[in-house]
Amino acid sequence: MKRKKIDVGADLRAANRAYATSVRSQLTQHNVLAVNLIGSPGCGKTTILEATIPALKGLRGAVIEGDIATTRDADRIAATGAPCIQINTGGACHLLAKQVEEVIENLDLASLDVLFIENVGNLVCPSTTDLGEDFKVAVLSLPEGDDKVAKYPRLFREAGCVLLNKVDLADALEFDTSRVQADIADIRADLVTFEVSAATGQGMDAWIDWLKTCHEAKSRHADRKK
Amino acid sequence: MKRKKIDVGADLRAANRAYATSVRSQLTQHNVLAVNLIGSPGCGKTTILEATIPALKGLRGAVIEGDIATTRDADRIAATGAPCIQINTGGACHLLAKQVEEVIENLDLASLDVLFIENVGNLVCPSTTDLGEDFKVAVLSLPEGDDKVAKYPRLFREAGCVLLNKVDLADALEFDTSRVQADIADIRADLVTFEVSAATGQGMDAWIDWLKTCHEAKSRHADRKK
Repeated sequence: MKRKKIDVGADLRAANRAYATSVRSQLTQHNVLAVNLIGSPGCGKTTILEATIPALKGLRGAVIEGDIATTRDADRIAATGAPCIQINTGGACHLLAKQVEEVIENLDLASLDVLFIENVGNLVCPSTTDLGEDFKVAVLSLPEGDDKVAKYPRLFREAGCVLLNKVDLADALEFDTSRVQADIADIRADLVTFEVSAATGQGMDAWIDWLKTCHEAKSRHADRKK
Repeated sequence: MKRKKIDVGADLRAANRAYATSVRSQLTQHNVLAVNLIGSPGCGKTTILEATIPALKGLRGAVIEGDIATTRDADRIAATGAPCIQINTGGACHLLAKQVEEVIENLDLASLDVLFIENVGNLVCPSTTDLGEDFKVAVLSLPEGDDKVAKYPRLFREAGCVLLNKVDLADALEFDTSRVQADIADIRADLVTFEVSAATGQGMDAWIDWLKTCHEAKSRHADRKK
C-alpha cells in the first residue's frame, strides 16, 4: 500500500487562518482594536485587565476569557461592568480562532473600542496561534525570574509589546530588570516594554496611553479606506 | 474518493508509550527512581533541584533538563556536581519520551538513585505525556496566585505530589494557602502537598524524606521481583 504523507499541522493552521481572518475582518469593520494577552499562569493577566478597563480614558473595552476550566476570571472581569465572555477549552493549552469567531457574535462590536482576549495561562503554546488580534501582548511577571525571555523566545519575537508586571516586588525578589531588557533587545531591539504593577497601578498610565495610540492609528487607517 | 479518518493523536500517543515503557524498564532495572517535575515558567523547578540534589541524604541524583532554548538551567545544575543533560526542544512545549530515551544512555544508571526530569516550563501540556517516570511532581509557586489548581486541574489529577514553592513570600503576597489546599482536596483528597521554599530551605526536609521513602519502596519492590 502506497502511503501519502499528510501534513496535519498545515491543514489545522490553514483552517485557523481562515477563522482568524474572519475575526479580524469583523473587528476591523467596527474599528475594534483586538489584543491577545499571553503569559504564564499567575503572571497577572486578569489583574491587568481589571486595572486597565476602568482606566481606558473614553475607550470602551470588552474581554474574552480563555481558561481550561472555571469561570473565575470572567467573574472578576464582570465585576468591572465590562462585557465578558468565558471560553473553557476543556484541556486545550490555548485558544483557537474558531472559538473566538463563535463567540464574538455575542458582543455588540459597534459599541466597543478594544477587545482584550486573555489566552490560557501558558508562555509557550498560545504564541503559535493567530486569533485575529491586532497584536499579541507578552505578559511576564517578576516572580517568574529574569531568564524567561531567552528561554521562551517565540512570544517575544511575535509580540506587539511586553508588560513586565509585578514591578512592585522588584526589591523583595532582587530582580534584575536590566537582564530582561537586554534579552528582549537581543530578540527585537524595537519591542516596547512597559514596566507595570497592575496591583499598585504603577506604570499603567503609559500602557493605557499606548493602547489609545494604537486604537487611534487603527481608526485613521480605517478612515482612509472609507 | 473515500476518506479514512486517521487519529493522528492516537498514533503519536502509542509511539510515545513505547518509548516511555523503554525508559521505565531501563530505570527500574537499575533501581533508579524517576520524577518528572512540571510547573509554570519561574515556579522554581531548577532552584528546587539545586536545593534537593546536595541534600539527598545518601542518594545520588542526576537531572535531565528540558527547555525550549538555552542551557541556562543545565549550567546551574552542573554547578551542583550532579550529572546533567540538557534537551532543547526547539519550540515544543513539553518533552517527549523519545527524547528521554535517546539521552539516558549517556547516564551511568548503575551509579544513580534518583533521576529528576525537569520538563519545559508549562502548567498545561507536559501533564499529558508519560516520559517513563515513576510519578509527576506538580510545582506551583505562591506568586502564581491561589486559583491555579482549579483552573489547571489535569496536572493535579495525575501528580504524585505537589510542591507549593516560595512559601517565604506568603506574607508579602497575602497568599491563601488554605484555598489551594481545598482545591487540591477537591481534585484528589489523598494528594501529598509539601509547602516549601527552595530559596530559604523551608520545608525541604519533608520533601526529601518523602523522596527517600519512595526510592526505598521502589527498591523493596525490585528486590521482591528478583
